[in-house]
Amino acid sequence: MEDRYQRGLALLDRLDREQGARILAALEEVAPDFARLLVEFAFGDVCARPGLDLKTREIATVAALTALGTAPAQLRVHIKAALNLGCSRTELTEAIMQMAVYAGFPAALNGLAAAKEVFATAKN
Amino acid sequence: MEDRYQRGLALLDRLDREQGARILAALEEVAPDFARLLVEFAFGDVCARPGLDLKTREIATVAALTALGTAPAQLRVHIKAALNLGCSRTELTEAIMQMAVYAGFPAALNGLAAAKEVFATAKN
Amino acid sequence: MEDRYQRGLALLDRLDREQGARILAALEEVAPDFARLLVEFAFGDVCARPGLDLKTREIATVAALTALGTAPAQLRVHIKAALNLGCSRTELTEAIMQMAVYAGFPAALNGLAAAKEVFATAKN
Amino acid sequence: MEDRYQRGLALLDRLDREQGARILAALEEVAPDFARLLVEFAFGDVCARPGLDLKTREIATVAALTALGTAPAQLRVHIKAALNLGCSRTELTEAIMQMAVYAGFPAALNGLAAAKEVFATAKN
Amino acid sequence: MEDRYQRGLALLDRLDREQGARILAALEEVAPDFARLLVEFAFGDVCARPGLDLKTREIATVAALTALGTAPAQLRVHIKAALNLGCSRTELTEAIMQMAVYAGFPAALNGLAAAKEVFATAKN
Amino acid sequence: MEDRYQRGLALLDRLDREQGARILAALEEVAPDFARLLVEFAFGDVCARPGLDLKTREIATVAALTALGTAPAQLRVHIKAALNLGCSRTELTEAIMQMAVYAGFPAALNGLAAAKEVFATAKN
Repeated sequence: MEDRYQRGLALLDRLDREQGARILAALEEVAPDFARLLVEFAFGDVCARPGLDLKTREIATVAALTALGTAPAQLRVHIKAALNLGCSRTELTEAIMQMAVYAGFPAALNGLAAAKEVFATAKN
Repeated sequence: MEDRYQRGLALLDRLDREQGARILAALEEVAPDFARLLVEFAFGDVCARPGLDLKTREIATVAALTALGTAPAQLRVHIKAALNLGCSRTELTEAIMQMAVYAGFPAALNGLAAAKEVFATAKN
Repeated sequence: MEDRYQRGLALLDRLDREQGARILAALEEVAPDFARLLVEFAFGDVCARPGLDLKTREIATVAALTALGTAPAQLRVHIKAALNLGCSRTELTEAIMQMAVYAGFPAALNGLAAAKEVFATAKN
Repeated sequence: MEDRYQRGLALLDRLDREQGARILAALEEVAPDFARLLVEFAFGDVCARPGLDLKTREIATVAALTALGTAPAQLRVHIKAALNLGCSRTELTEAIMQMAVYAGFPAALNGLAAAKEVFATAKN
Repeated sequence: MEDRYQRGLALLDRLDREQGARILAALEEVAPDFARLLVEFAFGDVCARPGLDLKTREIATVAALTALGTAPAQLRVHIKAALNLGCSRTELTEAIMQMAVYAGFPAALNGLAAAKEVFATAKN
Repeated sequence: MEDRYQRGLALLDRLDREQGARILAALEEVAPDFARLLVEFAFGDVCARPGLDLKTREIATVAALTALGTAPAQLRVHIKAALNLGCSRTELTEAIMQMAVYAGFPAALNGLAAAKEVFATAKN
């Protein structure tokens, strides 16, 4: 069990240590167990799996969250995480623009607005 | 204008010539202009852009369609197209499984069922 | 109360008497009150209101159901109802194609497939 | 007709008199009839029905709005209403956390953020 | 780790042993690890938690899947599971009908059609 | 190619020159090509087509965006555009209210809130 948590936390740190810590802290008061489930399952069990490289995983997540359009805060987190992993800004804007085809222009426009906001304070 | 259509058709052929032809033929009777718009815009203008490699584009599409859960036929088309481009079955099932985190288990289960169906008749 | 039900039923008959009767009959066994609520509220209270003509109301419904992509049976019912009210096939395919812009190509493609199916057996 | 409105208003008052009044007042200027339809149909016709206890109805609503992710203001209203009916904070956070399984972690995280906000000013 | 899997499997058996086994078997070929993650996380980690009784958890799930409208097969599974836990048919149809308010009539109509199908072969 | 862009820009100007210019300017920094694709495809290729009058097109868009509930900023833009084309406030609130039937009350309430905000500063 420790392993799943440690593996998840290590991945979360690699994606974005600061944002990860903030998300877990925000859960502490309202649903502390959920912070653990998020680290263990989402990061430790699923995203840390081999078989698909981490950059492609993040691009897939950015595409999916752009298409869904219901989680703008999480979309910004994953755009930042993708940059941290070495994805280029162009790779991200291309994946977001492509969602105009699969989920419509409003979804893509909101995704690009999220990217613009993240890029404004990102170093790479 | 010819260029956009030709570029889109060339990409569609590369993804899956047979399925592409079937989709365009199905539109012929009900909305012939839409077949042209699909080829020109979706494939010629957007998916054929440089800046993101085609395999990653298809994985992003498979992830997004899995997350949305509203277009199972198109999801199957893109799983097949991704295989045709050289994505491995594992890369695709990993991208789909990851959607359990971002869109829930039912979305991922339906995505895996689509993959299973496509894999059953695919050569690679 | 009678008024709301009668007004709703009259509208449902005008949209498509046969399909309306079939939908209400299907509810009879599992949730009979819901048949009444559907007639009273959806048709009697809302769709029968003045202020927006009935043809535009049906086109708005066809557009919305195409965009949502979660209710293909109801989409076919409303495409048929719109034809019955005098909407042309072109008006309907244009409204559906437009959803490619606002909800993506898969939504529009599925909407056009629904239209094609309805048109195949419709008289106008 | 009076009955439906009175029954709906009585239920709305029981859920949250203050928030209910605010919602109806906000509609007054832009769509006054809609305030009446909301009270009559949503509360008087549907939610006031016997056959499912009111606490379970509110938990079902909180779960559904968390899963949909498109109506954060209404989600907060129903979390507050559920508390007013005697649901515990734990029952609500459990229902919201469970949506991670059925609609993904972002939906659950946004639901928990809504709960946290409501809990901060709630008395029970 | 064994514990999470065993706890999840015990819950799945209680919900519907036959359907549970069928779902896990269907995953075996395409994504065997996902069967384990489903049992461990969805059932072992989340749905088996104390703090909200199991019947209410199933009603919340039925409501959410009805509202989402993207997973009709899973909706039928959970309607059946809810019956197995002792929910009455009325409790389920009321929860589904209520979704007309929060997600629209098409969602509720499709949910009632799913319920009708499940009820036709259920013993209670 | 010039034609598509010019036709799209002319339509965008007719819908709302000021908002159109602001949207295109916002894209300039993050994804300049997307501004062009938006004008060419969404406005030049699709919305400018004959076969459905422009007022009905805008009402269909307002209905669809209300139903989807994921793009409040774009919904406000299209409510404003519809007013600019000569749609009455009543036609718009009726189309939005009708979405309570097809996508639920929260979607309609959020759509009416968007309309109220636009109406507050609109001249017609």
